[in-house]
Amino acid sequence: MMFVVLGNTEVSLIPGISIAGATAELTKLTPPADAEYLFYERPKIIDTIPVTPEGHPTPAIITKAAKELANFPIIVVRGGTYLAPLVPHVHISSYVGRDFRKEKALPETREIIDRASLFGEELNKLNLGEVVIGESTPGGTTTAQAVLWALGYDAKTSSASLDNPQPLKEKVIAEGFKRAGIKEGELKDKPLTALEEFGDPMMATVVGIARGFKGRVILAGGTQMLAVAALLRAMGGELERFTIVTTKWVIKDKSSTFKETAEGLGVEYQYANLDFSKSKFKGLRDYERGYVKEGVGAGGAAWLALKRGFTERDIERKVEELYEKLTKNL
Amino acid sequence: MMFVVLGNTEVSLIPGISIAGATAELTKLTPPADAEYLFYERPKIIDTIPVTPEGHPTPAIITKAAKELANFPIIVVRGGTYLAPLVPHVHISSYVGRDFRKEKALPETREIIDRASLFGEELNKLNLGEVVIGESTPGGTTTAQAVLWALGYDAKTSSASLDNPQPLKEKVIAEGFKRAGIKEGELKDKPLTALEEFGDPMMATVVGIARGFKGRVILAGGTQMLAVAALLRAMGGELERFTIVTTKWVIKDKSSTFKETAEGLGVEYQYANLDFSKSKFKGLRDYERGYVKEGVGAGGAAWLALKRGFTERDIERKVEELYEKLTKNL
Repeated sequence: MMFVVLGNTEVSLIPGISIAGATAELTKLTPPADAEYLFYERPKIIDTIPVTPEGHPTPAIITKAAKELANFPIIVVRGGTYLAPLVPHVHISSYVGRDFRKEKALPETREIIDRASLFGEELNKLNLGEVVIGESTPGGTTTAQAVLWALGYDAKTSSASLDNPQPLKEKVIAEGFKRAGIKEGELKDKPLTALEEFGDPMMATVVGIARGFKGRVILAGGTQMLAVAALLRAMGGELERFTIVTTKWVIKDKSSTFKETAEGLGVEYQYANLDFSKSKFKGLRDYERGYVKEGVGAGGAAWLALKRGFTERDIERKVEELYEKLTKNL
Repeated sequence: MMFVVLGNTEVSLIPGISIAGATAELTKLTPPADAEYLFYERPKIIDTIPVTPEGHPTPAIITKAAKELANFPIIVVRGGTYLAPLVPHVHISSYVGRDFRKEKALPETREIIDRASLFGEELNKLNLGEVVIGESTPGGTTTAQAVLWALGYDAKTSSASLDNPQPLKEKVIAEGFKRAGIKEGELKDKPLTALEEFGDPMMATVVGIARGFKGRVILAGGTQMLAVAALLRAMGGELERFTIVTTKWVIKDKSSTFKETAEGLGVEYQYANLDFSKSKFKGLRDYERGYVKEGVGAGGAAWLALKRGFTERDIERKVEELYEKLTKNL
């Protein structure tokens, strides 16, 4: 079973921070649109799939391809978004993360974690063995880096952009740390405070589900899942039952510290080795140049399909087919 | 796995129709409070469990007792309520059924059914075999009777009251039929219209889940589930994979036509044979006089616990214990 946890944070509205939407304002709709696209030919809340300003398609297309091939169940979870997705989903909260330069990001952290834990506990009764948890959270690599820094990890998170806006992220984080009156590593033993000050509702939800559920957890994502793993570790959890599964594009990204930070944290990771270099579509070929990289649990969904006997080529072909269908219906 | 589908309808606000709340206004809070009580020592949205105006406790106490004994998972589903329950839940809609004397009850019927079907389809991938679906819908026996009449069943639905307000229900239904310009049985072949005109979001949600899910479905409720079964049959579904599981108190109720209507419909039924006559508490002993009777899937939850090797006496003892805890904390 796979979960896709949706989160919004006002941080995605800071110009230049996120390209998980055609405009900063549209990043508000990206999580529900991603979720809806997994179930329908196109989203419902808006008539087009989420794209970057340059038109690169959402990684939800990979998740959808893997789902359609391998037919595993996906449950959408609204960790905290502006709008409810127009598909059945588990409601955890409608709290959106605030701009942490100006105020605490998520005063509702405990409420979200408690509720998500209760949901994770119910899952134990289903004998699922393992769950895969992906996410869609525009601006989430900035909140992730802020949380990692607060917890004392000298990490650089990835970006859906070809040019990781690290200088901007670091400026924003510096302003947040100044507002909160803390220095890097100062919240090492205060993970809940780190989440309250700098986090987002996706992180709080994944932390909650992962603590309530007692089986193996695949954290399906890139550097944002490092922040989740760091929070779980700081909360006293063992990381043995967690594996981060991401994509080749995150692993290869030289602008981020995925491998170093994962190794520092002591969390196992794997990646799906998809290759879009031969795609007919520039939007997909550009994934090989470093656009988009990961999201909506793309790596973990691919991993689930591989586990069920499909190959990377099967997934690539299915993605091509889905993209073709989208361009035809434009 | 058990689902509890929450629904509200403005019909519960008609004076004298529903006692599923201490006042008519409080019936708005009954579904979320019932859901929360299943997971916590008391509800969150309000500090007391739902009671009738005379103080009889919600049948959620039976569902909770069965759940705590047999440890089966319960997933709360918000079919359509005024307020979201403060527990993790599957969100289908926030549409509340309207007063059908004045306007169509549920113009959003198709949207709710489609979304709930999609959820049911995802459940097929979990190999659950069977699901139990209960409900909490104040005023729901009136909408159920209206739908049954529209579909041509000369049924009388039950009531949580000792005095089933049949004359009032019939007056309300007559006004609704007049407003809609139809006669009894006239929507026999138009189940969606019957739902739109007179239904409630619980019915639409259960119909949707039951159609999407392909395994065995236990409809855990009394006469309201007859309306669901009648809708499923009118929509061309076979009723072989459905069983209504209710309580002895519904079966014994002379003011309703549970058995006759179930037999007319050709749907199988069973009931849990709980007995509260020896309870220390008047609120529970009164169940034997005909108060409350059923709700929140009480009969189906008891049936699940019985299937897992517990006895009726175990459940009664657990209910007694839970009620004792509530009275102590008052």
